[in-house]
Parts: sequence; C-alpha cells; structure tokens
Amino acid sequence: MSRWEPNGRDRLAQAALELYVERGYEQTTVAEIAKRAGLTERTFFRHFADKREVLFGGSEVLQDLLVGHLTEAPASAAPIDAVAVALEPLGGYFHERREQARRRQTVIAANPELRERELIKLASLASALAEALRQRGAGEPTASLAAEAGVAVFRVAFQSWIGDSGERDLSQLIGEALTELKAVTAGA
Amino acid sequence: MSRWEPNGRDRLAQAALELYVERGYEQTTVAEIAKRAGLTERTFFRHFADKREVLFGGSEVLQDLLVGHLTEAPASAAPIDAVAVALEPLGGYFHERREQARRRQTVIAANPELRERELIKLASLASALAEALRQRGAGEPTASLAAEAGVAVFRVAFQSWIGDSGERDLSQLIGEALTELKAVTAGA
Repeated sequence: MSRWEPNGRDRLAQAALELYVERGYEQTTVAEIAKRAGLTERTFFRHFADKREVLFGGSEVLQDLLVGHLTEAPASAAPIDAVAVALEPLGGYFHERREQARRRQTVIAANPELRERELIKLASLASALAEALRQRGAGEPTASLAAEAGVAVFRVAFQSWIGDSGERDLSQLIGEALTELKAVTAGA
Repeated sequence: MSRWEPNGRDRLAQAALELYVERGYEQTTVAEIAKRAGLTERTFFRHFADKREVLFGGSEVLQDLLVGHLTEAPASAAPIDAVAVALEPLGGYFHERREQARRRQTVIAANPELRERELIKLASLASALAEALRQRGAGEPTASLAAEAGVAVFRVAFQSWIGDSGERDLSQLIGEALTELKAVTAGA
C-alpha cells in the first residue's frame, strides 16, 4: 500500500457510513472502517480524530460555506434575504452527496448521543449566522431571528430532500421552505 | 424537623440555584443544597432525581403549559397565531420567577454540558409544538416551521426579559419578538 492514497478521506467516510448503517454506530470499530476502505488505521487517524468526526466533520465545512456566502451577499440585502443568498448554493454542494446524507441521517436518528451532537452543531450554525449578520450591521433581535429562521428553513428543506424520491434538488426545496416560512409567519 | 415541609421544592430549588452561582454547579453537592434549604437529603430526593433536575424540571412544566394552551387556541387560528396564543400566558407564569430564571441562565451559560441539555430541551419543545399543530390539522412543513418560529421567538424574548432592567414583562417582549420575526421574514 503506497503512502499516498487518493481520496482517502472520502473512501474512509463512505466505508464508515456503510458500516454504521449495517452494524450500528456503536458496534463499529476504526479498525473495521479502515479495513473496509482498504486503508490503515493510521490513515484513518490522519483524516479523523475519532469515529464520531466522520459524521460531524462536515458541519464545520457547512458553517464555513454559509458564513462565507453570507459575507458575499449584497450589503443592501435585508438579513433574511442575505440568509437566502447564503443557503442557495448548498444545493450544488450537496448534489452528489444525497446517499451519504441519507446514511448519515439514519445513523444519527438511531443514537441519542449523536442526535444531541447534531442539535449542538445546528445551534452553533445559528450562532455563527447571527454573528455574521451582526457584522453586516443587523441589530438584535433581528440577527438572531433571521439566523434561527435560516436554520429552520435549512433543516426542513434538508429533511424533505433526503426523503424525496429525487426529482427536486435541495436549492429548490430551500426556496420552497423559505416561501412557506414567510407565509406561516404572516399568519391568518 | 417535621415530616411535612411547606414549599420544600421551591426552597430546595432556590438554595440550589444560589449555591450553583456562588460555588459553581459541579462543586455543589446535594448535601449542601439540603443544608442551605434547612431540609434533609432525603427530602431533596423526594422532589428531584438529581442536582441537574433542579435546573431542568421546569422544562417539562413549560412544555405541558405550551401544548395545553395551544390545544385551547381557536380551531380557526392559523398555526403561527395558535403558537402566539400559546406563548402569551407565559408572562404570567414567569412573572414571579425572574431572579430564579436569571440565576438558572448564569449557571447554564457557565457549563457546556448544561448548555447542551438546554438545547435538547428546546428542540424537544419545538417537536412537541409541531406535533400539537399537526393534531390541529396543520400539514408539513407548516407545523415544523411554525413551531421552530415559536421557539425562536420565545428564546429571543426570554433572553431580553432576563437582561431587562424590569420595565417590560415577558408577554410584551414575546409580542415584540413575534412582530419582529414577521418583519424579518417579510424581508426587504
């Protein structure tokens, strides 16, 4: 086995998710993940701190993406519109990752500790978005409310996308959830 | 010490919150809480499963209150208006509890494990509200979005209320946060 392994991180993540679904997250060892991926444990630990990080390493990527896109939204955009601008490109990011996202969701749903970790990551995402909105000049509670609204829209759209038979892409579902939120908060 | 202690639960909760603020949550023992309240450890455990439940026992009360009020909202009310009806009476419930709520917030903010627990309780509150909305006939994603919006409004208003010098009551702040959310989601 050569020292350099192409796509090592992706191969390990895919092997881990397969094993978590087949055997259960708790029952799966790093040794088994490495073996399934055709790599060594040492390589695993070069890419991930532990087997939980396989599931949550992407949360930081997502947060950086969203905050980055938010920063690029036109200065004149209202907070919720800046959030919409930030969410839109996620469709492209997740496009090739639906099967992976489905497996991840299955694993997390089955384990209370992982569900808690997921909630914490989403709360941290909302805090980061609120901070980015304040840096654009939004006051409080506007920034927090727009950030919470954005995360609620993302969660609802992501859930639909994972459950969808495959006709609609995530960007479209995000747009629909945002429209729905506007209708919902407008009330009767 | 008589077997029957008036307001035992309240006295224990107050003693616990004082000690958590003074000495830190982790450093405080149940024996110290009972002593400060002038009660026995045995009495403590008649009221609370452990020292963490002093902080989170109220979360179930809050959830039952909200779901109960939601069920009583007029059948014709739109989901977000039913949520507003459910949130409104919280002002009365928390009116005499501001100091206690402030102490609780200080303790939770200082401890990562307690912050996580708080997030989980709020997520569970959103799930319970969404379920109550579905039982009123709301579809998805309307029910989830209205429930998430309600919890975001409650969080923001509660935070303002705790930090407020005391002029505005929680119901008023909830009303203002809801109005602000409507303005925020309406966008530019």
